[in-house]
Amino acid sequence: MSTSVDRASAKGPKTERGERTRRKLLEAAEREFGANGFHATSIGEITRRAKVALGTFYVYFDSKDEIFRGLVDHMGRTTRSWLAERIGTATNRLEAERLGIELYIDFVRAHRDLYRIVMESQFVAPDAYRAYYETFVEGYRRNLDDAVRRGEISAGDADIRAWALMGMNTYLGLKYGIWDESRSSREIANEAAAMIVEGLRP
Amino acid sequence: MSTSVDRASAKGPKTERGERTRRKLLEAAEREFGANGFHATSIGEITRRAKVALGTFYVYFDSKDEIFRGLVDHMGRTTRSWLAERIGTATNRLEAERLGIELYIDFVRAHRDLYRIVMESQFVAPDAYRAYYETFVEGYRRNLDDAVRRGEISAGDADIRAWALMGMNTYLGLKYGIWDESRSSREIANEAAAMIVEGLRP
Repeated sequence: MSTSVDRASAKGPKTERGERTRRKLLEAAEREFGANGFHATSIGEITRRAKVALGTFYVYFDSKDEIFRGLVDHMGRTTRSWLAERIGTATNRLEAERLGIELYIDFVRAHRDLYRIVMESQFVAPDAYRAYYETFVEGYRRNLDDAVRRGEISAGDADIRAWALMGMNTYLGLKYGIWDESRSSREIANEAAAMIVEGLRP
Repeated sequence: MSTSVDRASAKGPKTERGERTRRKLLEAAEREFGANGFHATSIGEITRRAKVALGTFYVYFDSKDEIFRGLVDHMGRTTRSWLAERIGTATNRLEAERLGIELYIDFVRAHRDLYRIVMESQFVAPDAYRAYYETFVEGYRRNLDDAVRRGEISAGDADIRAWALMGMNTYLGLKYGIWDESRSSREIANEAAAMIVEGLRP
């Protein structure tokens, strides 16, 4: 799914080889933007890392801004499909919430550049940043509504809950995925899920 | 408190007039960085807006980077004291959580520049960004521990809870404070607090 939608929005040849080159450029951009940020990264550094000629870059992307946006979109798809594949094993929504936190922290630990790029897009490509989160919330909201209908969770405003839960996950990812890896993702997930499943009321 | 600690870290004269000039520079910087971001803002634009001579800037700050950091610190103090004064009316921790969400959304709506500056500090001054959140969490953690001791909330890991709740507040602030002001902060707070107080379990 990721590949076909990525392709639809790309310039240049739609051959298998072309797709491979485009992916090499995206991977190099992920490393460069992730390590040095948008402003300190040049197209030349991306093509050098990707081992692709500078002219070839423009077959696929119009500018540094465009590859950055392409990357945020690509990251959103990667994160969502990575999580969806693994959360599929949860037997109900309450367990899916717990497992989602655990997996998101694992994902951030393994993709630190991604976390940085998505956060920086707030300033470099605000529309891509907003689209990233709104797409996430859209899926989250649907899952919560379905779970209410199946009687797995209490009724409540799915929009507000989705934004609240996404914020919670994002900051647990920042703290325990990037800043402090001393505790297991399972321990973090168990504690955080206990709060949102059982509530703070004694 | 805010003033004395701000002063301690400042260059330049500690007179009342000097303090007024420093504050004018910080206010102008808040507007400029908030509207145009760190990279597109120059010291000249800050001093023009503050109606202060360019040379005077350097009596108070060494660089654009330094005034930006000073601003993140100043913002943290302002937010915390603004919230603390108003949350004081809550009769217990569960009500304080609800009221905290409502007030934070109100605060973000009234200080959009602040939200942007703190978020951008993640890239421009990562240590200031981290300090901003860790100071917030420190206070949050203490409040949660006290509430457990008083029997107002269930027992649980205060660190994880504080990070989870702060992330929730930050993203509710982004969504309902900045992107979509169509719903009242009270309605958002009631729904989000219901989830964390009563839990998702049916």
